[in-house]
Amino acid sequence: MTSFEVVSIGSVESPLIDRVQAPRQGDEGAPDAWLTFEPAVADAIRDLTPGAEVMVLTWLDRADRTVLRTRPRDDPARPALGVFSTRSPDRPNPIGLHRVRVLATDGLRMLVGPLEAVDGTPVIDIKPVLDQATER
Amino acid sequence: MTSFEVVSIGSVESPLIDRVQAPRQGDEGAPDAWLTFEPAVADAIRDLTPGAEVMVLTWLDRADRTVLRTRPRDDPARPALGVFSTRSPDRPNPIGLHRVRVLATDGLRMLVGPLEAVDGTPVIDIKPVLDQATER
Repeated sequence: MTSFEVVSIGSVESPLIDRVQAPRQGDEGAPDAWLTFEPAVADAIRDLTPGAEVMVLTWLDRADRTVLRTRPRDDPARPALGVFSTRSPDRPNPIGLHRVRVLATDGLRMLVGPLEAVDGTPVIDIKPVLDQATER
Repeated sequence: MTSFEVVSIGSVESPLIDRVQAPRQGDEGAPDAWLTFEPAVADAIRDLTPGAEVMVLTWLDRADRTVLRTRPRDDPARPALGVFSTRSPDRPNPIGLHRVRVLATDGLRMLVGPLEAVDGTPVIDIKPVLDQATER
């Protein structure tokens, strides 16, 4: 399969240390977290301001990329589903998609929340929410 | 910066041939398009069925990855913004995020729409929409 190089533009600083401890989704009790950006993207983050709702894309680097089918929420009572019908981090390209609010900015750092990604997770993109009512 | 390898899991077959012709967003008159998946991910797509709303993630391989600031919609009357405050395809990691409906499935092919990605664009992930009212 053709491949491309995705670069880390920053990383997550969070009190969440491991996957077992992390909520499945941000709205299930996840904490706020600081994103620390690479100096190379300073010009790209400059217009992000507190109050904005954004989609944070992460690279879930502790995921198992060989998994194609999984039981949602690891529930043995549920049938296994293809990973593209689940939000499991275990998938061929372990990209995390997180809708968060920008809470503060400080140079190359930005506080966002709630965010279920664990400490050290690479950040690969930030996008504005297009429609506040219909995007997550 | 640290980098990771993202693999193409399929590609877009669309009547849209170039970026100039493509709508900015799917809901701005974009056509339906077939996604053709690699045989290696057949087990991962099996539970995607017509009617489902999904997020298609693409790798916008014709984007300019060096752009950090841009004028939204190429409108000279608008001030340049950092690309993380825009949905421009030109950004460090040119990942496209498209909310679409699954219209038909046929083995390794799946018809979705509306989709503004141009013909040949690599597909890198499919995720279910978590909340039909709040995700795009």
